[in-house]
Amino acid sequence: MAVSLNTEYLKDFIDESEYSAIDSQVRLVQALLRSGAGEGHDYVGWVDLPDNYDREEVDRIKKAAEKIRSDSDVLVVIGIGGSYLGARGVIELLGSQYFNDFSDLKVYFAGNTLSGDALKKIIRLCEGKRISLNVISKSGTTTESSIAFRIFRAMLEKQYGKQEAASRIYATTDKARGTLKKLADKEGYETFVIPDDVGGRYSVLTPVGLLPIAAAGFDIDALLAGAQNGKKRFSGEEIGTSDALKYAAIRNILSRKGKSIELTVSFEPAFTMMNEWLKQLYGESEGKQHKGLFPASCIFSTDLHSMGQYIQDGARQLFETFIRFGEAGEDVEVPYEIDDSDELNFIAGKNLSYVNDKALKATEQAHVSGGVPCIEINVDRIDEENLGELIYFFELTCGISGYLLGVNPFNQPGVEAYKKNMFKLLGKPGYTD
Amino acid sequence: MAVSLNTEYLKDFIDESEYSAIDSQVRLVQALLRSGAGEGHDYVGWVDLPDNYDREEVDRIKKAAEKIRSDSDVLVVIGIGGSYLGARGVIELLGSQYFNDFSDLKVYFAGNTLSGDALKKIIRLCEGKRISLNVISKSGTTTESSIAFRIFRAMLEKQYGKQEAASRIYATTDKARGTLKKLADKEGYETFVIPDDVGGRYSVLTPVGLLPIAAAGFDIDALLAGAQNGKKRFSGEEIGTSDALKYAAIRNILSRKGKSIELTVSFEPAFTMMNEWLKQLYGESEGKQHKGLFPASCIFSTDLHSMGQYIQDGARQLFETFIRFGEAGEDVEVPYEIDDSDELNFIAGKNLSYVNDKALKATEQAHVSGGVPCIEINVDRIDEENLGELIYFFELTCGISGYLLGVNPFNQPGVEAYKKNMFKLLGKPGYTD
Repeated sequence: MAVSLNTEYLKDFIDESEYSAIDSQVRLVQALLRSGAGEGHDYVGWVDLPDNYDREEVDRIKKAAEKIRSDSDVLVVIGIGGSYLGARGVIELLGSQYFNDFSDLKVYFAGNTLSGDALKKIIRLCEGKRISLNVISKSGTTTESSIAFRIFRAMLEKQYGKQEAASRIYATTDKARGTLKKLADKEGYETFVIPDDVGGRYSVLTPVGLLPIAAAGFDIDALLAGAQNGKKRFSGEEIGTSDALKYAAIRNILSRKGKSIELTVSFEPAFTMMNEWLKQLYGESEGKQHKGLFPASCIFSTDLHSMGQYIQDGARQLFETFIRFGEAGEDVEVPYEIDDSDELNFIAGKNLSYVNDKALKATEQAHVSGGVPCIEINVDRIDEENLGELIYFFELTCGISGYLLGVNPFNQPGVEAYKKNMFKLLGKPGYTD
Repeated sequence: MAVSLNTEYLKDFIDESEYSAIDSQVRLVQALLRSGAGEGHDYVGWVDLPDNYDREEVDRIKKAAEKIRSDSDVLVVIGIGGSYLGARGVIELLGSQYFNDFSDLKVYFAGNTLSGDALKKIIRLCEGKRISLNVISKSGTTTESSIAFRIFRAMLEKQYGKQEAASRIYATTDKARGTLKKLADKEGYETFVIPDDVGGRYSVLTPVGLLPIAAAGFDIDALLAGAQNGKKRFSGEEIGTSDALKYAAIRNILSRKGKSIELTVSFEPAFTMMNEWLKQLYGESEGKQHKGLFPASCIFSTDLHSMGQYIQDGARQLFETFIRFGEAGEDVEVPYEIDDSDELNFIAGKNLSYVNDKALKATEQAHVSGGVPCIEINVDRIDEENLGELIYFFELTCGISGYLLGVNPFNQPGVEAYKKNMFKLLGKPGYTD
């Protein structure tokens, strides 16, 4: 069991009878999701993706990654939202937030902001380096990523000439339509496909995530194998036989009891960007029709010294989901000190991973005492295979949660509002009064 | 006016009469805060700090910073919560999240986690480098920072011998008591004082924040001058004459109307860690007795592609506070492209800062239409002086907000609960059954 659910910290908050009461709804919506008969059914390609993915394309991704690693110092990944969060989350969880400090190939994520300062910093970091680009956009007209691509493309063409530049640009986009696909075909960029039936926030296991992750040096076969394990492991049709369904049921029960914020928590700083990926997955899937749990996140014990007071004693509107890793990367032993002036000798000789896990358990107990329901998701270790399974677990939970909430978990109608206003303020043709 | 409040996006949510109705309460609590007669009055030293700070100590800080910059490649800042968030927030806002990539002196923040992996990464980054340490702790017994200090101290003593190591260790701690102060005196470390009347989350303008900020190369005189401006500018005794009081009133009014989450928003990724500083300031000050706004944050437009859907259309439990900068660091011009395949020529020749600000305005309009009250805080530019004023503005708002809410904004009784459990689980003498 690489990924499993521990519900012992929910006993004070959810009675066994509540699971029985919601089980028929859960059965119904999982059937809806799997039969492809539910709302938004054109976007459930991620459900079977771990079995169905295009093996030849994955081979091409691995070859492209190898070329990038051999001929570049820097890979600039241009994309926003679902077109960068998954890749960045996986790379930083597997390689830490200091990934670039230890890697020969630096991976910079651009095109995810309109800040001139932020973009200029990345441009300067690339100067004088051997660069490759991976531009990721279904349409090719997303403002943030288009601007960055226009700038970096010009930079590469100036540095290498048009032809070699084209051999260093990889476009992950629609299989046939859109301005990026058109440009890629015209210029001869290698292209990878964003499937039509997988939305951005569910796309980390498609080429959207796989090319940057492979280029960063991680094993995408193991990642996909992990997702396949997850698909099998969580295939049960009821709460009692699928931890993903049970987690979705818990989220729904707590939400109906007035808990309106889910705080996802890890004790590993390397999980920071996976938390951001989770916020998009849950927030964009559930946040509609004035419904949905507000997705927030913490890294502990760090944030116990900032958000800890609120969680322990503040307004009782939240519950926590702890992602607990059995093993997590490198370790450090607490040294012994003869005079023990800082009173730490009681843990001398212990590894920090041991201390960190006791802190996790201590926190769960403290927060439960404070009236905060705590869910614990156990993951054996931080590696590609476990992470693939965890990603599938969260995606499945999210789809089920959306249906239980009575929304379409696969659309995002609300994200257009600010864009229309922005185009109008910027005088884009067709958007002025 | 370096920092000022714009309330035009609140018109649909707060009637003018509501300000009049709460003004007498605001007058009362600001008098309480300034007279030092309120709850937690032993910790209001930050109110007059911009006038009263120890000039000689600030000179010593600047000298220490100069020494560090001249004899070190790396400064490791060891502290957690209020002992690192302010310094890190200021350094990254003034120097971007890529600060270390462009600075001769790298600044690493350690001792703010129990993750062995995270600590080991910093240890490896320091190997072979000329190192200085700034350890920041009132007591010297905070677990996270004590462990890191034990390890780095041993590393320095091995590298330099005990005597030179001591000249590279700077202790920011209590003026007289505590294990760190005792050790510093014994070993001969230079020490700086954490004032007794300033709590951790209000301490960024004390040596806690000032030494790392000065070592990073920023102008702490300008930062303190900005805070002094803020103290003067927001000294009004009623809503109509102090934007800080008005902002506190707005937070209280919206909270009483059922808004339970405040989302602080910046369009500059460099603000990410200032958002974390704000979360501690507000969350730890207000989150008690089952009360308080839940503090959350976003960086836009980045997170409009992840959290945007929820904010536009999800559960109507939140309001937003936009921190809008008139000028923000470096800039990039959108280039012209002859075939305009990506349809961006309508903004060719414009700077990104122009586009970014239009996106901000467009977002405020969109979210207001979606039922989200939006507060706008205008800041002329990102520099030390403006930032000093902004910090004072937030601290004052926070103190007033806490009193309006009916809590003591200067204590944090809830943060001990997990520590007791942890010491028990780890078998610390005195904590076992």
